[in-house]
Amino acid sequence: MSEDSKPLVGIVMGSASDWGVMRAAPETLERFGVPHEYRVASAHRTPELATEWARTAADRGLQVVIAAAGGAAHLAGVVAAHTHLPVLGVPLSGWALDGLDALLATVQMPKGVPVGTLAIGKAGAINAALLAIRILALSRPELAEKLRHFHQEETRKVMEIELTMD
Amino acid sequence: MSEDSKPLVGIVMGSASDWGVMRAAPETLERFGVPHEYRVASAHRTPELATEWARTAADRGLQVVIAAAGGAAHLAGVVAAHTHLPVLGVPLSGWALDGLDALLATVQMPKGVPVGTLAIGKAGAINAALLAIRILALSRPELAEKLRHFHQEETRKVMEIELTMD
Amino acid sequence: MSEDSKPLVGIVMGSASDWGVMRAAPETLERFGVPHEYRVASAHRTPELATEWARTAADRGLQVVIAAAGGAAHLAGVVAAHTHLPVLGVPLSGWALDGLDALLATVQMPKGVPVGTLAIGKAGAINAALLAIRILALSRPELAEKLRHFHQEETRKVMEIELTMD
Amino acid sequence: MSEDSKPLVGIVMGSASDWGVMRAAPETLERFGVPHEYRVASAHRTPELATEWARTAADRGLQVVIAAAGGAAHLAGVVAAHTHLPVLGVPLSGWALDGLDALLATVQMPKGVPVGTLAIGKAGAINAALLAIRILALSRPELAEKLRHFHQEETRKVMEIELTMD
Amino acid sequence: MSEDSKPLVGIVMGSASDWGVMRAAPETLERFGVPHEYRVASAHRTPELATEWARTAADRGLQVVIAAAGGAAHLAGVVAAHTHLPVLGVPLSGWALDGLDALLATVQMPKGVPVGTLAIGKAGAINAALLAIRILALSRPELAEKLRHFHQEETRKVMEIELTMD
Amino acid sequence: MSEDSKPLVGIVMGSASDWGVMRAAPETLERFGVPHEYRVASAHRTPELATEWARTAADRGLQVVIAAAGGAAHLAGVVAAHTHLPVLGVPLSGWALDGLDALLATVQMPKGVPVGTLAIGKAGAINAALLAIRILALSRPELAEKLRHFHQEETRKVMEIELTMD
Amino acid sequence: MSEDSKPLVGIVMGSASDWGVMRAAPETLERFGVPHEYRVASAHRTPELATEWARTAADRGLQVVIAAAGGAAHLAGVVAAHTHLPVLGVPLSGWALDGLDALLATVQMPKGVPVGTLAIGKAGAINAALLAIRILALSRPELAEKLRHFHQEETRKVMEIELTMD
Amino acid sequence: MSEDSKPLVGIVMGSASDWGVMRAAPETLERFGVPHEYRVASAHRTPELATEWARTAADRGLQVVIAAAGGAAHLAGVVAAHTHLPVLGVPLSGWALDGLDALLATVQMPKGVPVGTLAIGKAGAINAALLAIRILALSRPELAEKLRHFHQEETRKVMEIELTMD
Repeated sequence: MSEDSKPLVGIVMGSASDWGVMRAAPETLERFGVPHEYRVASAHRTPELATEWARTAADRGLQVVIAAAGGAAHLAGVVAAHTHLPVLGVPLSGWALDGLDALLATVQMPKGVPVGTLAIGKAGAINAALLAIRILALSRPELAEKLRHFHQEETRKVMEIELTMD
Repeated sequence: MSEDSKPLVGIVMGSASDWGVMRAAPETLERFGVPHEYRVASAHRTPELATEWARTAADRGLQVVIAAAGGAAHLAGVVAAHTHLPVLGVPLSGWALDGLDALLATVQMPKGVPVGTLAIGKAGAINAALLAIRILALSRPELAEKLRHFHQEETRKVMEIELTMD
Repeated sequence: MSEDSKPLVGIVMGSASDWGVMRAAPETLERFGVPHEYRVASAHRTPELATEWARTAADRGLQVVIAAAGGAAHLAGVVAAHTHLPVLGVPLSGWALDGLDALLATVQMPKGVPVGTLAIGKAGAINAALLAIRILALSRPELAEKLRHFHQEETRKVMEIELTMD
Repeated sequence: MSEDSKPLVGIVMGSASDWGVMRAAPETLERFGVPHEYRVASAHRTPELATEWARTAADRGLQVVIAAAGGAAHLAGVVAAHTHLPVLGVPLSGWALDGLDALLATVQMPKGVPVGTLAIGKAGAINAALLAIRILALSRPELAEKLRHFHQEETRKVMEIELTMD
Repeated sequence: MSEDSKPLVGIVMGSASDWGVMRAAPETLERFGVPHEYRVASAHRTPELATEWARTAADRGLQVVIAAAGGAAHLAGVVAAHTHLPVLGVPLSGWALDGLDALLATVQMPKGVPVGTLAIGKAGAINAALLAIRILALSRPELAEKLRHFHQEETRKVMEIELTMD
Repeated sequence: MSEDSKPLVGIVMGSASDWGVMRAAPETLERFGVPHEYRVASAHRTPELATEWARTAADRGLQVVIAAAGGAAHLAGVVAAHTHLPVLGVPLSGWALDGLDALLATVQMPKGVPVGTLAIGKAGAINAALLAIRILALSRPELAEKLRHFHQEETRKVMEIELTMD
Repeated sequence: MSEDSKPLVGIVMGSASDWGVMRAAPETLERFGVPHEYRVASAHRTPELATEWARTAADRGLQVVIAAAGGAAHLAGVVAAHTHLPVLGVPLSGWALDGLDALLATVQMPKGVPVGTLAIGKAGAINAALLAIRILALSRPELAEKLRHFHQEETRKVMEIELTMD
Repeated sequence: MSEDSKPLVGIVMGSASDWGVMRAAPETLERFGVPHEYRVASAHRTPELATEWARTAADRGLQVVIAAAGGAAHLAGVVAAHTHLPVLGVPLSGWALDGLDALLATVQMPKGVPVGTLAIGKAGAINAALLAIRILALSRPELAEKLRHFHQEETRKVMEIELTMD
């Protein structure tokens, strides 16, 4: 996290074992210079912590929340139920079913409480950060500019790929 | 609910629209004379209500909790996180995927917070009540006796079936 | 759409047959007084229209884009590739597989181009609108206030439900 | 198993190869000082053994039964058909389909014969033990106290996690 | 059933509600003049009946057994565990998941106890009868002859189909 | 294969790469002293070979046919369409989807042409052999006797398992 | 079919019951004036007919073959094994699993024998015809011209859609 | 690619990481002496490149296009929307769900824009090339001849397989 500014994006994950995959989210935010915070808070093992974290998120100055979990992934839904901030969910592959359980448990929210769900795993972690940046960029022209650079760079990298047969 | 006794089983469901299926649970408890209570409390739309209901369940004298929901069915997990009572989950078919989403969101709980999950839909509603009765019967011999009668009756009904070709 | 203000949310869907489900999105926005626009533009049958619509979305003043499609649901991804606005995807049940195809085709975006995906079908349509409102509310206090009212109302409605056995 | 007391929980699994995962169940019971027994008994290869084990479970003083199997996981259902004790099922990943077969074969019991199903694999093994403990704790205050300690400990462990970027 | 001969094929199903689909099996056997018997016996609600029926099947003169069930379809496996006769399983669509649960619960038998599984539902009921007939025909030339006629008839019927555009 | 007797069971598989798994079928037959033959014949790459092999199976004296394949596993169905012998199918895990493709492609046969399908992979290979033996045992008492011994042995092995905690 | 020209596209389906869906294929070809033929030929019930039809397809002047089936949909693969013409497969929803069985049985062909698979059901029937037309158009400029018109028309139709709220 | 002739088949893939699997396509074309081109162009990260590549494909002399991608695999659909050439899609296993996501996202195209989809992964890469060759062979007798040789060779290789037990 940038030392000198208040976090705009909060990242919460259900278990320390999610960190290996989820660190791609703060790394992406870092790349765009977006201040952020992250921590573990389980919807099931530490429900008070998770709901308190969510309930105070707006007051702490957060603008977007990213929640990641595996298995019966309730964390994003629990967070979305306790804040009015936009909540982005990242389903993680757990111990079986290759992430399908976490995907359905994150995305199939009933009407009234939305979770914007990204892809399973690391691609989702990165994209949650990028979607948070798109949201923040609505009122931060310098971030919009950085997004443009990011996409030009992505384009350039793809265009420079040389496939060879050996 | 039997008028003259405190509820032993609490049933909670995520939406009024679940009642058509879930009423099979209190009907089954009624058949065994088990006092119970039921209500709607959404993990997402009324999280405080759901967690408060769970947190006070033991103090209200409940011994077993049944929680039913569809889609990203978090209710049983949320309840299990806020009580030490045994929690039984009933996944309900929602608006897509034929109940697979609710099943995975209910059963794939991370270690530490168990939800005993029953079948999708009405069979699960009935069986949640029957599993609650099995639990209560551990210290209530008259319920154990009723269970024996119930199974004898089930057996008799199956044995009397006559299949005919016309 | 409110007559007197520029649209803030753009809704695009892949087929006129999606309208029966997707109209729940503009209806929800209407309820919050959020100006919006909607139209049909197929990623496959009218790719120029879809990409042009996406490319000019920001210039038209849109802040959030909602894209809905069924089957091999590419529309949200195509839109996200042509705008830097936040893009929300709604997978719709098509002619087979109960919406699983649209869900996976919408949510499993590769890193670099995020789509915040909501639930399959009408719940997703409503929640896409609500997530758009959460995003807009970051800089519009009156919307944040309306969200609070909306959730109080939802809570009240759940709490008033009376389940009866007859 | 504690040497000096009669088993309260019986654990049965379909194959010796399940032991690597399932030993997490007796280890969890051990941690709570709950006397237990465990053995292999296949619903298919040794049906008499399995049904006899189930039929005599209550007479042996067991209060809760845990049954684990992979593939067409019938063991929990067979056990539930031969005892009135509460039966908890643990689906195990087998040789294909990542445990989905065992999950559906365990959870989708027809009305009349309930199996409280836990998560696939090791998380399910641990949670089956914890759910058994929740059931036993209904009439054993010292177990309820241990559950409270367990959850406080779990909470403390989550709260102490420090995520670092290096 | 042919009045004057002992049944060669036994059909058992888990519930009277399966009869609407499963009657296609005895109807097919009837068409080939194969004596048979059928009944309801639930692996879960009447386990003694089901195992007794299986255990005595060979002594009653049965040569092939067909077992059909929905949901956590254990019946075929239970039967196969109690007889050395060839056992054919028919998975039936139950109350959710479109028969996938019954298919996996029937077919994914562990090594040692085989169930030859047919298609979900009515096609499976008919084909179980036809596979039983193929087995019986190994030592009954008149059945082999009838099979030949059956296939010629099937071929003729397909070849005579006229598709028209109006 | 026993040298001095004509094969009773024919095993065919779609690719040489299936042999590592499928050799468990002839090994099982060997254990029971059942003469057999096996070969590779692809329904797609060598359709004439596969159909010719099936068409002449009965004339070569085969009584039961086992067909195994992965992916869009057509081999068992093709074989079943060209012989009146009982056909047993073994779905194999291929290069994706963990064998679900082969399972559905083998088991979901249309009415008229039955394939008795066993479990995915090696368990299915062994069980196909055992089901073939059950069929052959109908008219070979010595095989029935061997089956009894086999199951007694299986029972004994399960009963002797000692689970230990170290 | 145009009366005065030899068929260029052959359509084969596994059952007369497929015609309700599959007639969309010849109707689409008709619209482009492409001569064609269609018939029922089951890979399982009439294998000789199906293979003969495939083997002689090129000699009859066909350029592209469309094969449609449900369940364990082998027809396209069988056809592809007996002709060198391009083969397009249409998986149809059968009696269970919503077409997933037919999709996997059609598309997961092993290397060496390709089937170009279209969407499940009617969309696939139409698109198989359109892909056949794209193939034929490679050497028929008038068809390429018609394709251009078709797509302009499709575009126009989408662009003219007016969504209204009443 | 053959040096001295214009490419007839264009291969495009969504990421450089697809090359390890997809190189099987150009290798197969090489084996038949079919001139071709290949490159990376992402539907999401470089949409202009992808659509431009597709739009100019016919003008560059391409006759068939092969598009491969993983996850929410939109590339084949995007390409098919921008060319009238026949488009063949290869779904690739991505970071989760074993390729099911890419399969559904490629094959479930809405009516109007066909993608002929091959198997997931390397088998699909090879078969896409072979289907392209079948299409090209319609007007190139020397390719038809090579296809015949290829299939004879495949047949010969299968027929020469010797399975041994050691």
